[in-house]
Amino acid sequence: MLHILPVSEQPGLMRQTLTPQEQSADLTLEQLKQLVGLVDYDESNDPFPVTAMDAVVFVVGNATQAAQFYQLALGMDLVAYAGPETGVRDHKAFVLKSGSARFVFKGGVSPDSPLFDHHRRHGDGVVDLALEVPDVDKCIAHARKMGATILDEPHDVSDDNGIVRLAAIATYGETRHSLVDRSKYSGPYLPGFQAAQTWVSRPAGHPKRLFQAVDHCVGNVELGRMDEWVAFYNRVLGFVNMAEFIGGDIATDYSALMSKVVSNGNHRVKFPLNEPAVAKRKSQIDEYLEFYGGAGCQHIALATGDLLRTVDQLRANGVQFLTTPNSYYDDPKLRERIGKVRVPIE
Amino acid sequence: MLHILPVSEQPGLMRQTLTPQEQSADLTLEQLKQLVGLVDYDESNDPFPVTAMDAVVFVVGNATQAAQFYQLALGMDLVAYAGPETGVRDHKAFVLKSGSARFVFKGGVSPDSPLFDHHRRHGDGVVDLALEVPDVDKCIAHARKMGATILDEPHDVSDDNGIVRLAAIATYGETRHSLVDRSKYSGPYLPGFQAAQTWVSRPAGHPKRLFQAVDHCVGNVELGRMDEWVAFYNRVLGFVNMAEFIGGDIATDYSALMSKVVSNGNHRVKFPLNEPAVAKRKSQIDEYLEFYGGAGCQHIALATGDLLRTVDQLRANGVQFLTTPNSYYDDPKLRERIGKVRVPIE
Repeated sequence: MLHILPVSEQPGLMRQTLTPQEQSADLTLEQLKQLVGLVDYDESNDPFPVTAMDAVVFVVGNATQAAQFYQLALGMDLVAYAGPETGVRDHKAFVLKSGSARFVFKGGVSPDSPLFDHHRRHGDGVVDLALEVPDVDKCIAHARKMGATILDEPHDVSDDNGIVRLAAIATYGETRHSLVDRSKYSGPYLPGFQAAQTWVSRPAGHPKRLFQAVDHCVGNVELGRMDEWVAFYNRVLGFVNMAEFIGGDIATDYSALMSKVVSNGNHRVKFPLNEPAVAKRKSQIDEYLEFYGGAGCQHIALATGDLLRTVDQLRANGVQFLTTPNSYYDDPKLRERIGKVRVPIE
Repeated sequence: MLHILPVSEQPGLMRQTLTPQEQSADLTLEQLKQLVGLVDYDESNDPFPVTAMDAVVFVVGNATQAAQFYQLALGMDLVAYAGPETGVRDHKAFVLKSGSARFVFKGGVSPDSPLFDHHRRHGDGVVDLALEVPDVDKCIAHARKMGATILDEPHDVSDDNGIVRLAAIATYGETRHSLVDRSKYSGPYLPGFQAAQTWVSRPAGHPKRLFQAVDHCVGNVELGRMDEWVAFYNRVLGFVNMAEFIGGDIATDYSALMSKVVSNGNHRVKFPLNEPAVAKRKSQIDEYLEFYGGAGCQHIALATGDLLRTVDQLRANGVQFLTTPNSYYDDPKLRERIGKVRVPIE
């Protein structure tokens, strides 16, 4: 459940400002409050302040094709590239944006690239839910105290466009959270990346973009481990619990799951954590764990200001959707979850 | 050089007929003569009769994405599928068509799939240039006599749609030629595949298809081995030499290559074979051999009846083209290669 709280009613809370990503995407604070449930909060008491998602980083089998696919099918714009042409020996990486959402697609080009090991174990998948933070060192110091696995110690990387401070901690499965402070950096992504341009043309009438932001990123974890990972996000990242779906909340007769949602202080970053629940047949979460080869990021939810137009265009672009059951609109409890919408629900 | 020979002037030659693939794609004999240089020839003297390309089979990192990519970018239609849902344990395969051209995209879904080994060594690449033949056993008997490596002995595979007879011989690198006799089969591809439907919508005004046939498939082989592979196609597959580009024919000051083109009797199947040639810098063929990890299929040439419209649409779909140098139109020798076209060359 997302609560949008007017600033005036929250004495003592810091007013949220737009991130540079959001500014460059022409988003307004009002839009973000509606889109992703942005709220004001007091960052000074946060032991692990997180501003926003920095990027969702995927490892894929064919990064070039993925870059074109996400331009064609998801209407994203290419903004940066690194690869053999820019001095990277063993892989390619393409950076695409839509509003404030940033996706990075990495794929091996030399057989000795370790990216191929990840691809073989998991297929195309998310390796990094990178977080934009104002103070990498403060976050890592707190994470270490709370027992997190530090994968990369804080360090600077730099080029002509400035300095980025980076570190990384481990989360479920083979997934990591890079921590990124790019406040002293003006380049298109990270040092080593070159600016790049969208190379597809969109048909007349195609919207400028199909989504504005990442709403949430879901992690699927093993049976019995959901609460452990919720506690990890509470303890290590200072995330708060936003919602939970347990027992029969998300279940058919055949497949069921349990889910708890944690979020950062300003609610820009929301991570639902799912585990399988018992039903007549195998839980969809068990199926995921079996096919993905362990815990991992199940899906990325995208926020759009015009759901109908976006879904029509995505469908035309070949993106496949599940059928929405009628109960989603008829059942009062489910209906309530939809919240206020600007179009009639028929 | 392609010669289109009127049937009436070729006494004693068998009149070519349309393959079932070509018939179902609404192609005419006249079109095919123009498009791919189809000629009449006497099949009865051919020790290894080949009717046409059956399919170009790729191994890719993400078969689902490739299937959507080739629908979106190349305007192809999905016609068949095999994967976990149809009882295949470790991989997925999507079959797409455009006119008489058939592409198959296979990708591993279980880490123990050997497709991942190929993907790691080569990236997305062609594993099989499958040939439609009227008599698999006759071809294999001849190939064996001529010293070819038989990878699969002739055998039947069948389902409710009938029987397909199959075999396979090795060619350059890790590439094979499957031999396919589907004259007793009515299914969408091979036994085990289910019919499937294109899942993208094309914008209004998008042509029904962007290409009608495969014109040729180029193999890059190691320095000094071109003539050996030309001899292989002559001796084993009874292919004839159609053209050669040696010395300065295909060269800039910096990169050069040698190429000889072999084709089957009716000229539907054309295989240029390239090897590096010496120039100031590394040959583009050497670059291919280095990045692909050995000999392999370099490119697939597609035949279209409307080059301008197809190129415009492919560009809009994000397909990137090299710039054509002016000399291609100015130099009389190069200009001659273009042949007769129906649009002014400016």
